[in-house]
Amino acid sequence: MKTLWQHCHIATMARGEYSIIEDGAMVTAGTLIEWIGPRAELPPGDYAQTHDLQGAWVTPGLIDCHTHAVFGGNRSGEFEQRLQGVSYAEIAAAGGGIASTVRATRAASEDELFDSSRQRLRSLLRDGVTTVEIKSGYGLDLANERKMLRVARRLGQELPVSVRATCLAAHALPPEYKDRADDYIEHICNEMLPALAAEGLVDAVDAFCEYLAFSTEQVERMFKVAQRLGLPVKLHAEQLSSLHGSSLAARYQALSADHLEFMTEEDAIAMAAAGTVAVLLPGAFYFLRETQLPPMDALRKHGVQIAIASDLNPGTSPALSVRLMLNMACTLFRMTPEEALAGATRHAATALGMGDTHGSLEVGKVADFVAWQIDRPADLAYWLGGELDKRVVRHGVDVTV
Amino acid sequence: MKTLWQHCHIATMARGEYSIIEDGAMVTAGTLIEWIGPRAELPPGDYAQTHDLQGAWVTPGLIDCHTHAVFGGNRSGEFEQRLQGVSYAEIAAAGGGIASTVRATRAASEDELFDSSRQRLRSLLRDGVTTVEIKSGYGLDLANERKMLRVARRLGQELPVSVRATCLAAHALPPEYKDRADDYIEHICNEMLPALAAEGLVDAVDAFCEYLAFSTEQVERMFKVAQRLGLPVKLHAEQLSSLHGSSLAARYQALSADHLEFMTEEDAIAMAAAGTVAVLLPGAFYFLRETQLPPMDALRKHGVQIAIASDLNPGTSPALSVRLMLNMACTLFRMTPEEALAGATRHAATALGMGDTHGSLEVGKVADFVAWQIDRPADLAYWLGGELDKRVVRHGVDVTV
Ligand SMILES: [Zn+2]
Ligand SMILES: [Zn+2]
Repeated sequence: MKTLWQHCHIATMARGEYSIIEDGAMVTAGTLIEWIGPRAELPPGDYAQTHDLQGAWVTPGLIDCHTHAVFGGNRSGEFEQRLQGVSYAEIAAAGGGIASTVRATRAASEDELFDSSRQRLRSLLRDGVTTVEIKSGYGLDLANERKMLRVARRLGQELPVSVRATCLAAHALPPEYKDRADDYIEHICNEMLPALAAEGLVDAVDAFCEYLAFSTEQVERMFKVAQRLGLPVKLHAEQLSSLHGSSLAARYQALSADHLEFMTEEDAIAMAAAGTVAVLLPGAFYFLRETQLPPMDALRKHGVQIAIASDLNPGTSPALSVRLMLNMACTLFRMTPEEALAGATRHAATALGMGDTHGSLEVGKVADFVAWQIDRPADLAYWLGGELDKRVVRHGVDVTV
Repeated sequence: MKTLWQHCHIATMARGEYSIIEDGAMVTAGTLIEWIGPRAELPPGDYAQTHDLQGAWVTPGLIDCHTHAVFGGNRSGEFEQRLQGVSYAEIAAAGGGIASTVRATRAASEDELFDSSRQRLRSLLRDGVTTVEIKSGYGLDLANERKMLRVARRLGQELPVSVRATCLAAHALPPEYKDRADDYIEHICNEMLPALAAEGLVDAVDAFCEYLAFSTEQVERMFKVAQRLGLPVKLHAEQLSSLHGSSLAARYQALSADHLEFMTEEDAIAMAAAGTVAVLLPGAFYFLRETQLPPMDALRKHGVQIAIASDLNPGTSPALSVRLMLNMACTLFRMTPEEALAGATRHAATALGMGDTHGSLEVGKVADFVAWQIDRPADLAYWLGGELDKRVVRHGVDVTV
C-alpha cells in the first residue's frame, strides 16, 4: 500500500536547516517514508493513493518536547489577581501558586484529568503537533504521579499524537515533606521511580534544579537511580540562577537541559560534548517577563542543538501553540525562523531520544508531516497566533482533531 | 421567531466591566437581543428554538477595531532577513519595508487580494471576532485605494463578519509623490476622499501622524475635508514620538487615536473630554520590541476608554488572533483581563462608532456573541495562542467559518 504525495515544496529539516526540496514528492508505505525527492526524479511506481498538496510547504510534524499538559484546574484566577495588584506573596499565603495546582490535580479523577488535558492537546495538535512530551509533577506522591502518567499514556492512545511520558516527581516539595527535601528525594529514588518504571509509565526522568527546588546533589542521586533503571534523564536548569545543573545533566548524558537562561559558556561546552539538547522555552520567558536571555551566542558557537517547546503549564506558560513559540523564539531570543523550526522538529526529536525515527523527512523515518498553505517556511515563525490552513498527516494518514 | 439560549454564565460587558450574570439566559428575536438576565427570571414564552450552552461563558463577539487585513504578499522574507542580520537600511535600499507591500498590493488583482485577505479574516473569526475594521493604505492612489476598500466591503458580504472600512490613503508617501507630501495630501483631499466617499466605500478617515509620515498640519487639512464629507476620523498617533496627534484627533471628535505609546497626560485629558477612544496595539509593541509603554495610569486616571486591537499588518504586527492581543495587553501593558476584554468589546465598538448597537449584550443590541468553554472570563486573556472550544453566534445565528 504505497501513497504518493506531490505538488508541494518540502522543508525536510534533514541536515543543515530547512534542507529544501522544491517541487518535491514523497512516497509513504504504511507509516514510513519510502521515497522523498524532487518530483522530476520520482521513480515509476504503482500507488494505491495519490494526494495533490496544492503547492503547500511540507515540514515534519511539529514536536513539542517539553510540556506539563496534564494538570487540574488552571491559574487564570491568579493571573487576574496579580494584574489587579495582589502580590505573589499574598497569593502564595492564600495557598496559590504551584500548591494550588497540586491540590487540584490530586483532587481530580483520572477521567477528569484526561478530559481537561485532551482539550489542551487538541489545541496543540490543530496547530501541527504530531509528537508531544508530557511530564508528571503535580501529583508529588506515588498514586498521583501514577495517575498523571497514566493520563499521558492514554492521551497517546486516544489522540492522533505520539506521547513521551516523563516522570517529574522532583518538581516541587510536596506538603507532606515540608523542610525534608532529602527525604522526599529518597522516597522518589527508593519507591516512586522503581514502581512507576516497572509499570512502564516512564520514558525519561526529569527534575527541577533550582535554589527554590532541588540541589544538584539531590538531582544527582535521582539521576543515578534513573541510570540503574535504564531511563534517560532531562533537567530543568538555570532558569532563575546558575547552579550548573546543565553541566550535571551533560555528565549523565541527559537528553536535554531545559530553560537555561542563566547557563554559562562552560555549561554549553559540556552539553555540546554530551549531545545534550538545549530546550529553550520562550513562552515562560515572555509570560514571566524575564529579562535574562539564554546565551544564544555560546550555544551556537559550541554547536549545541537547540530545541523550542511550549512548556505548556498553568503557572508560567499557558501556551497552546508551538507555532507561537517559534515566533517568540525569533522575536524574543533572536533565533532565525530556520533555527526555530529545527528546534520544533529535528532537535526536539533528539531531545526526546527519537532522533532516529522522527523530526525530519527522510527515507525510513516515520511519515509525520504537515502540509501548510503558506508562501515560505519562515511564515511558520512570522504569523502571530491564529490558525493557518494546513493538512496534518501522522503515520502516513490524514489526521483530524 | 424567538430563540432561547441558556445554561451559561454571561459577561455582558454592559457597564462596569464584566457585568456578570451567573446562570443566565438570553432571548434573541431575529438579529437582536430581546431579553437577557438570570435564568430564574426568564419570562414565560414560546421559543422556536432552545439552545443549551452547556455551562459556557458567553461574551459579546470580539471586535477588532484596527486592522490592515487587506494587503498583497507578506513580509516573512524580510522578517527572516532581519533575524539573519540584514539591517533595516539594507532592506529598505533593496525596496523592502512598506514599499514592498505597496508594490505587491498594487500588483494584485481584486480577486487575489480578496482571497489572501479572506484567509486571514477566517483566522480572526475562528477565534471569536464578529466585527472587524479594515483600513486601506497600501494602494496610495485612487484606483488602488478603491480596490482595497472594495475588497473590505466584499469581505463583509461574503464572510460572517461586520466590516467597517477606513480610508488610510495618508498611510505613507507614494513613490509618485516623493518629497511632495503636501501635494499628496492635496490630492487626497481634492480627489481621493471625495471620490471614494461618493462611492460609499468609506466609513471613517485615518492617517499616520508621525515625523516619518505626515505632520499634524497635513492631517488637519484632511480632517477638515472628512468633516465636510460627514465622515468620522481616527488617527495613528504618538507611536514613535510625541506630536500631540491624539490631541488634534480629540479636537476633531475622532472616534479613536491609536498606538499612543508616547502620548502625554494632556493628550489623555483632551481625549477623555472628546470621548475619543485610546486604541492600544500590543502586537506591534511586541513585534517591534518597543520599550516605551503607553501611559496606562494617565489613561485610567482621566477615564479614557481603552480598546485593544490586532493591528493585523504585514510589517509590524502579523497577528491573526485578538485573544492573543488580550494576553499581550495584560502581560506587556499590565492591563487586567477585565480591561482587556472590555477593550475588544465595548470600547472597540465605540472606537468604530458602533457603541449603540454592538460591544455589549443588552436588550435591543445586535445578537453577536461567543459561548466559550472556559472556567472564567479571565481565561480569554490567560491562554497563550491556540484554540479554545467555543460557539460563535452572529446576528442571532450560529457561525461556521
Ligand atoms: Zn517545565
Ligand atoms: Zn495601524
